[in-house]
Amino acid sequence: MSTTQTNQIEILKSPTTKINEVDFENLSFGSVFTDHLFECDFKNGEWQKPIIKPYAPFLLDPSSRVFHYGQAIFEGMKAYKDTQETVWLFRPDENYKRFNKSAVRMAMPEVPEEIFMNGLNQLLQLDEAWIKKGSGNAMYIRPFMIATGKGVIANPSNEYKFMIILSPVTSYYAGEVKVLIAEHFSRAANGGIGAAKAAGNYAAQFYPTNLANEAGFQQVIWTDDATHTKLEEAGTMNVFFVINNVLLTAPVSERILDGVTRKTLIDLATSENINVEVRPVLVSDLVEAAKNGTLQEIFGAGTAAVVSQISGFSYQDIYYELPKIDNSVAAHLKNKLTNIQNKLEEDKFGWTVKV
Amino acid sequence: MSTTQTNQIEILKSPTTKINEVDFENLSFGSVFTDHLFECDFKNGEWQKPIIKPYAPFLLDPSSRVFHYGQAIFEGMKAYKDTQETVWLFRPDENYKRFNKSAVRMAMPEVPEEIFMNGLNQLLQLDEAWIKKGSGNAMYIRPFMIATGKGVIANPSNEYKFMIILSPVTSYYAGEVKVLIAEHFSRAANGGIGAAKAAGNYAAQFYPTNLANEAGFQQVIWTDDATHTKLEEAGTMNVFFVINNVLLTAPVSERILDGVTRKTLIDLATSENINVEVRPVLVSDLVEAAKNGTLQEIFGAGTAAVVSQISGFSYQDIYYELPKIDNSVAAHLKNKLTNIQNKLEEDKFGWTVKV
Repeated sequence: MSTTQTNQIEILKSPTTKINEVDFENLSFGSVFTDHLFECDFKNGEWQKPIIKPYAPFLLDPSSRVFHYGQAIFEGMKAYKDTQETVWLFRPDENYKRFNKSAVRMAMPEVPEEIFMNGLNQLLQLDEAWIKKGSGNAMYIRPFMIATGKGVIANPSNEYKFMIILSPVTSYYAGEVKVLIAEHFSRAANGGIGAAKAAGNYAAQFYPTNLANEAGFQQVIWTDDATHTKLEEAGTMNVFFVINNVLLTAPVSERILDGVTRKTLIDLATSENINVEVRPVLVSDLVEAAKNGTLQEIFGAGTAAVVSQISGFSYQDIYYELPKIDNSVAAHLKNKLTNIQNKLEEDKFGWTVKV
Repeated sequence: MSTTQTNQIEILKSPTTKINEVDFENLSFGSVFTDHLFECDFKNGEWQKPIIKPYAPFLLDPSSRVFHYGQAIFEGMKAYKDTQETVWLFRPDENYKRFNKSAVRMAMPEVPEEIFMNGLNQLLQLDEAWIKKGSGNAMYIRPFMIATGKGVIANPSNEYKFMIILSPVTSYYAGEVKVLIAEHFSRAANGGIGAAKAAGNYAAQFYPTNLANEAGFQQVIWTDDATHTKLEEAGTMNVFFVINNVLLTAPVSERILDGVTRKTLIDLATSENINVEVRPVLVSDLVEAAKNGTLQEIFGAGTAAVVSQISGFSYQDIYYELPKIDNSVAAHLKNKLTNIQNKLEEDKFGWTVKV
């Protein structure tokens, strides 16, 4: 391995590459990783020297806080390669800001912008050959931080590890998605951590989602935990509705993640003169619209799938099938957004940032 | 190292011991670990061969599910050595059952009783010299399970690691504990994972607890997230109140952990003819009792501290100091319970189990 210094990041290059073993036409989402990773440790009250090094397992003590008390946060981002072989990020500042909001809520240290952004850019440059051109192709980026301090006592760790790993992905199609509206389980408490991209929020959803799967549904639409009357998120995505030609989504709150795709779609739709309303959407609104024929679409929005169309929902044991629409708002917005991300259409919003 | 087989557990003994480096008079809770640990992996849909081996860091892939989606659960237990050098566990069946309840809620595989109990017993026997006699001395036992499957996609892992680690402890005294009653933050949602001993529940409490610390309080009394009117837990413990000579605690629910110390204290108090009521305790009950002079005690109950007396509470910016009581219910029950655990008093309940 060769060791070089660039912008204060130590770079330890892998002597070999795994790239020739990868079938880029048949990638299973989030399962293949590039040759390198970025790592920066926090100890003695400060961030240590960052390093880019070969992707590999690492050692942790069995008493590491992340295993016992769950201090762990992450982000999901993507990088794209345009037809000129230039690599672009999409609104990376939004992910960076949200990462540190999550850190604060989980009593973890904030990551300095230089460490986050330089690490991300240099890692992408080093593993640039893994980013493929073409619609749907992208590099999924996973920055994450875990508590590495030792000891089984329930208080915040004094040591942390921040890492970025990269996984090449193709377009994500989940198949037909029927959803179950949550009547008992929920993903977030008032005064809880639902707005943080904290690891524990996801594990909490698995069991109710498994139950939904067994009942024939691919995802759960989460409702507020106190009354189960407000529609809040779909699976691990924000959720949108089209009722009577109005695009509806709930305002973000301490229970709802401030999704980058969510806010981007709101801006895109507004610029396309689609009528958008950000307001609490009630289960009763949805059922009434389904019954009187004004419900046109439901879709999830997130980095991984971009937009995920929902074909029907179940509530109180009644299944409501959505109409099949040729020119859906979901498909239109997804197409617009992916064209901007892939630099096939002008980015008049300034969302794309060159690596 | 010597390798032997005992009851199907492979035992890989450490060639050396760290025991002579430990100051058993000055142990910081949960920070010193014994020479060995117990480990059993789950993969290909089944539990693999368990092993006891030297306590050491282990390798994990950066994409391990525990880092990203927080599937992680644990238990807290203690073992005690009596004056005859016999080692005893306290109600281990309760911890075992709760561990598997947590596993189900977090979509993790249940651990077979033989693996849990044999692993625990043989590990304690091997590191028996680390368990010290005398009131307050105990071996804190931490069984835990983490998701080790690889891949950054938000669904349950197909690989897990179950471990038991041991930490010798002395009696735990937190100093004076003043508490803040939560008016905004909360630890659990309706339909959430509050009743599971899931890692993510603990990290969620750190930030609000830090804010309480900064305001001069050692802990937070958590209230229900929907209305903040019901008193539910104190820090990471169940909470009890003595009002007008009645011992009060909330019923367990999906928001409240079914604590082993909690249920033990209820049974002990009942057998001592203390008037016990298990019912929702309102913030307004507490404030009224503090004002009219009928509030006698507040205390937390859990494995680590056993009983933790609270000296006062703050609610809506008013601080209520509790009376100093010579013969408190808390001290009486703690004394009874630790005497039973340390085999200094007859265990007529059958709670203690020989290792």
